[in-house]
Amino acid sequence: MAEFRPASPDQAQLLDELVAAGHLIPSGVPGVYGRGGDYEDVRMRFDAYVTRCATAAGEAPEVLRFPPVIPRKQIEDLGYLENFPHLAGTVFAFEGTEGQARAMAETAGRHEDWSEHQCMSDLVLMPAVCYPVYPAIGRRGPLPAGGVTIDPGGSYAFRHEPSGDPARLQMFHMRELVRIAEPETVQSWRDGWRDRALELLRGLGLDAHFDVAADPFFGRSGRMMAASQREQALKFEILVQIAGPEPTAIASFNYHQDHFSALYGITTADGATAHTACLGFGHERIVLALMKTHGLDVAAWPDEVRRELW
Amino acid sequence: MAEFRPASPDQAQLLDELVAAGHLIPSGVPGVYGRGGDYEDVRMRFDAYVTRCATAAGEAPEVLRFPPVIPRKQIEDLGYLENFPHLAGTVFAFEGTEGQARAMAETAGRHEDWSEHQCMSDLVLMPAVCYPVYPAIGRRGPLPAGGVTIDPGGSYAFRHEPSGDPARLQMFHMRELVRIAEPETVQSWRDGWRDRALELLRGLGLDAHFDVAADPFFGRSGRMMAASQREQALKFEILVQIAGPEPTAIASFNYHQDHFSALYGITTADGATAHTACLGFGHERIVLALMKTHGLDVAAWPDEVRRELW
Repeated sequence: MAEFRPASPDQAQLLDELVAAGHLIPSGVPGVYGRGGDYEDVRMRFDAYVTRCATAAGEAPEVLRFPPVIPRKQIEDLGYLENFPHLAGTVFAFEGTEGQARAMAETAGRHEDWSEHQCMSDLVLMPAVCYPVYPAIGRRGPLPAGGVTIDPGGSYAFRHEPSGDPARLQMFHMRELVRIAEPETVQSWRDGWRDRALELLRGLGLDAHFDVAADPFFGRSGRMMAASQREQALKFEILVQIAGPEPTAIASFNYHQDHFSALYGITTADGATAHTACLGFGHERIVLALMKTHGLDVAAWPDEVRRELW
Repeated sequence: MAEFRPASPDQAQLLDELVAAGHLIPSGVPGVYGRGGDYEDVRMRFDAYVTRCATAAGEAPEVLRFPPVIPRKQIEDLGYLENFPHLAGTVFAFEGTEGQARAMAETAGRHEDWSEHQCMSDLVLMPAVCYPVYPAIGRRGPLPAGGVTIDPGGSYAFRHEPSGDPARLQMFHMRELVRIAEPETVQSWRDGWRDRALELLRGLGLDAHFDVAADPFFGRSGRMMAASQREQALKFEILVQIAGPEPTAIASFNYHQDHFSALYGITTADGATAHTACLGFGHERIVLALMKTHGLDVAAWPDEVRRELW
C-alpha cells in the first residue's frame, strides 16, 4: 500500500455526512467512491456550465474524447516517471496457460498474493485528461493559423494517492480545455481563463481565490522542480476551503511551454514549435465545495446558484 | 502481449475509414481509441434514447455512478479469475524509495522492462459496469417490497483483448440497467427488456436479432460453463452484422440467479435471497453499427433515425 494519508477530523466528518446522505458510496478502498444521483446531476450541470462559459467567451473548441487508459510508451516518452513515479498506475494482465490460470485463481480466492501471475501490459491509467490530445494533434501536421483549442471533456484521470480526505480521490473527473498555438497566444489564453474561471466559480457562491502553484513532484529533486515552476508562474490554481487544515485546489491553469509540442512535433502554421497550455476543473472537488458551501440538500441551494446550474 | 486478434479485411477497411473521417483516433495500442465529436454526440444521444425508453416503459431506476476501478478484493471474492483470467486488468503502482524511482524512470526512458518496480495495488479495472452495484445495495439491508432497479449509466469497462477489429475495444462504455428482486420479477424484467431493446435498436434502422449466448469463459473448463449457461438460457445477446465473418453482439441480457446476491447478502423484503439480472448496451459498438448502416456522415442519416436520436 502507498502511504495512506489519514483524514483530518473535519474531513472524516464530511465524508461520513456525504455517505449518510447517499452522495458518496464507499468501495472499501480509500479515494474510490460511487456517486449518488444528485451528486452526478450537479457534476454534469457544472460541466455544461463550463461549456456555456466557453461559448460566451467566443470559444468553439473541437470536441475529442479519450478513454481512461493511454499507451505506456507515452509516459515513458514524456519522462512522467521522473517527476511523478508515486502517482502512476500501470495496467497488468494475465498471459499464461490454463494451469497457471488455475493457480492464480486459487491464490486470489485465498486473498493471497497473486501478483507473480500478472505481466505489465502496454497500457497505463490516464495521468491527466490532456495527455492524449498532444500526439493526436501532432499527427495532423502543422497547426492552422491561430492554432487550435481542444475540449477533451470531463474525463477520468488516476492518481495513486490513497487518502481519507473525500476531496482527494484516486480516480476522478478532470474537465479540461487545451490551447495549442504561438507562445503569446497560449499564455494570454491561460491567463484569460484563470480570471474567467475565478469569476465563474465565484458566480456559484464559492469563496475562491487563485494562487501560483506547483505540481506534486516526487522526492528531493522534485522540490527544485516545484520551486522553478513557481518562479516561472507556469501553474496557477484556484482554491477553496473545503475541509482540512488547508484550502483545496479545485481548478488549475498550466503553461507547458514546449514540453508536449517538442516531443510530438507540433508546429505552428509558419513552422515554429508551438506551445501548449491547459486548464482543468476538478469535477468531484467542485461538487464537494458546492455541497460544503450550500449544504447537502441540493434542492435547498440558493436560488442564484440553482439559476446558474439548472 | 496478449494474443492479438488480427482484423479481417473488412474490419481493417472500416477502421481505416473511421480514422480518416475523424471518428476514431488511434492511440498506438489496438482497441484503445479516442473519439471525435460526432461519434461522441451519437453515443450520448443513444444513451439518452435508452433512458427515454426506460421512462416510457414506466421505469424510474435509481441513478448511481461508479469509476472505472473497483477493489481487487471484489474480483477475488467473486471468482472472476476462475472464469475470465485472460480479461482482467489489475492496477500496479510504485512503492519504493527515491533511488528506486530514479532506476525505474531510467529503465522506462530506455523503453526497457520496468515492471519489477511496480507492486500490485488494491484496485483492478472495472470488469462490468454493474459489479459495484451489488455490494452497494447489499449494504443497505433488505430490499424494499418489489426490489430495486438501478441505473449505473454508460460507464467504462475494461477487457484485456487487443484486437484489430474496431468493434472490439479494450476500454469501452457499457450502458447498464440492473434489477434486483424476487426470481420471477427479475426474469420477466430481463425478458421484457430483451424484447424492448430489440424494438429500440430496430427503431434506429439496425438489422438486429437476438440469440441465446454465453460469456467468453476461459479454457477447457470454460467450454462446459458456456454450454451450461446456454442450456439454462441465462444470457441473451442482440447481434448486428458490422464487419468480419460473424455478427457482433451490441447488447446483452443476463440473469445471474443468486451469483451476486448470495455473496453480498442481498435479501428481499421477506428475507429470501434476492436474484439479480442486468442488461448492457455496448455504446461504441452501437455507434459503429449505426455508422456502418447509415454512413459515416452523421448529418446525412435518414430522417427517421435522426428524429429518434436528435
